[in-house]
Amino acid sequence: MDYEEPLFFRVIQYAVNADHDVVNMVSGNPDWGSPPALAEGLHEYADTGGQNFQYPPSDGLRELREEIAARRQVPVDQVIVTNGGGGANYLAMGRALERGAGDEVVMTDPVYPYYPGKTNMLGGEQVFVDTAADGALDPADVRAAASEDTACIMATTPNNPTGAVYGEETMRELVAIAEEYDAILVSDEVYDHFDFSGRFTSALEFDSEHRIVVNSFSKSLAITGFRVGYCIAPEAHVEPMKSRHMLTNVAGSRPAQAAVLHALRETDPSYHEENRERLAERVETFTSALDDAGAEYTKPDGGFYVLARFPDFPGTLENTFELIDEAGVAGMPGAGFGTAREDWLRFALVTPRVEEAAERLADYFADR
Amino acid sequence: MDYEEPLFFRVIQYAVNADHDVVNMVSGNPDWGSPPALAEGLHEYADTGGQNFQYPPSDGLRELREEIAARRQVPVDQVIVTNGGGGANYLAMGRALERGAGDEVVMTDPVYPYYPGKTNMLGGEQVFVDTAADGALDPADVRAAASEDTACIMATTPNNPTGAVYGEETMRELVAIAEEYDAILVSDEVYDHFDFSGRFTSALEFDSEHRIVVNSFSKSLAITGFRVGYCIAPEAHVEPMKSRHMLTNVAGSRPAQAAVLHALRETDPSYHEENRERLAERVETFTSALDDAGAEYTKPDGGFYVLARFPDFPGTLENTFELIDEAGVAGMPGAGFGTAREDWLRFALVTPRVEEAAERLADYFADR
Repeated sequence: MDYEEPLFFRVIQYAVNADHDVVNMVSGNPDWGSPPALAEGLHEYADTGGQNFQYPPSDGLRELREEIAARRQVPVDQVIVTNGGGGANYLAMGRALERGAGDEVVMTDPVYPYYPGKTNMLGGEQVFVDTAADGALDPADVRAAASEDTACIMATTPNNPTGAVYGEETMRELVAIAEEYDAILVSDEVYDHFDFSGRFTSALEFDSEHRIVVNSFSKSLAITGFRVGYCIAPEAHVEPMKSRHMLTNVAGSRPAQAAVLHALRETDPSYHEENRERLAERVETFTSALDDAGAEYTKPDGGFYVLARFPDFPGTLENTFELIDEAGVAGMPGAGFGTAREDWLRFALVTPRVEEAAERLADYFADR
Repeated sequence: MDYEEPLFFRVIQYAVNADHDVVNMVSGNPDWGSPPALAEGLHEYADTGGQNFQYPPSDGLRELREEIAARRQVPVDQVIVTNGGGGANYLAMGRALERGAGDEVVMTDPVYPYYPGKTNMLGGEQVFVDTAADGALDPADVRAAASEDTACIMATTPNNPTGAVYGEETMRELVAIAEEYDAILVSDEVYDHFDFSGRFTSALEFDSEHRIVVNSFSKSLAITGFRVGYCIAPEAHVEPMKSRHMLTNVAGSRPAQAAVLHALRETDPSYHEENRERLAERVETFTSALDDAGAEYTKPDGGFYVLARFPDFPGTLENTFELIDEAGVAGMPGAGFGTAREDWLRFALVTPRVEEAAERLADYFADR
């Protein structure tokens, strides 16, 4: 699969240019606002200046790495602060592919479209594994797809776009498969604060040289534009990953790191609970309205997204534009996420208008 | 040459851990402070929140790109905002190497050590060209080193570490050589505000499909930690470079971009003039004290650095540590910049204590 992200921008652009009101359910930008301590941290940092405006350590501000290490209960030496989750995935996949232990990247279909794009850019080969209708991943399918040429296995939990959450057994098996084939499981857990199922299990639970965990503050602190994420990697992989980070970016952006550090220290856990509960309510609201619209959908166990399919209405780009024009609702075509959900549309629930959007969809399909 | 940046950190660490006062002339972090509008911009941004904390366009805030385009008198479509000059070089070199037009990267020796490191990371081959004693680059030497296999020619003007500034004829020739061999000249001009010679000529002066200009606000606004730089690239290269940027980092950090935009709009040109004059004075002060110390040196035409060689005292890591211990002055070993200046040390003039440092060096070598 080619890198499809421009599709995302085409849809956004089309929705923005519409001359009528459109509920934007395309992007994954949280709409609930950052904790107040985030802006406070930025103000405090702005007042420093001088040497505080100069290079942070390439692997991130030491205190931020310590804060992350304490929260994740890992040694601080295993933490590399990155340019968001995107930068973290780049470092982890780059490491997996440079080891001389294969050049195949096993990923699911549907897939988060940056993975196949990054695989191409890094010179790897794409291998896809189908998931169940609800997005569940059967580790046996991953094992069947894996081989001596497997360098990397990508897991996203909670999943974008399916909303699946991989439970403890799945994660344990994925780590075991990575070990079996001398590959690296890259577990992308950027939606970990948005697990509605209680089944979320981080790959960190399984100590192994063959797993790297990717995370980010983009979603959990509602700052997709700050670009602060991190990898947790076993010692054997840390130095080459730091080297790649330095050679690519020198370092991450210090104002953003300083703000995140302050926010982590000063934000009550209730901030995260409220956001998760709000999102869970939106899932209920949106999916029950989808029932009224006669749509098939996967009810997410976690994350921001609902995949839906409407009768005789494949999720093509053309139909996506049709819904923007005629229903006033913008989603993402399923073809943006591989071949498995080409008939579907993805709706991001990061708007307070989910009920209105679902009603608009119901009205549109009732009249059709 | 291997990637030598860890050497830099070893020296910094050694200097920081010393139990006596050390004048730090290792890093290139400006000590003269950012313009006040920079912090103002950060405060203003911190007060926005919500959607303003979400993803900026991958290629940078539109208004920032417009501001850069207006200043550099190029179409805005040619401007990609990057994660600092390091990110800009990565995109430009990545583009040069992915075109299928060769895999050799021609660079000078002495060299900015990230170039050979990036070349390795991107799967290219390193080719080195010697420069004159004063750092001057003879385009004939570049032409002799170039071949059909040349993908990329790296130029740094003003130069780190030599302080050379490449004049109009040199730049014109470098662009011509890139055209001749279907290569891309990557002109890294991050020290362009610090030209003492009046001879600085940007590669932008020569319109060509075969040159990409790299710049950054790290040095000009004294914000190495913000990570805001840019590429100016001909249309043919823009889309693949944007794609690489997106697949690597998604986007740059928005607080930093917003602050830079505000600073560009509100900062008087006198800020830059004063900084350049201060640095030029430091060059005079430091080099005349080096005369007293019996050192050989290259007097820079631009940039932050002076290369110096002391009698019977090669610029090894061991001798660098010796100067930290016994003279209280920390420089960088010449071996960090290739083979050509292994006998030399590089001193960064980003401290008000340049005279004191030079006197300490003179005293040390007088007693030796």
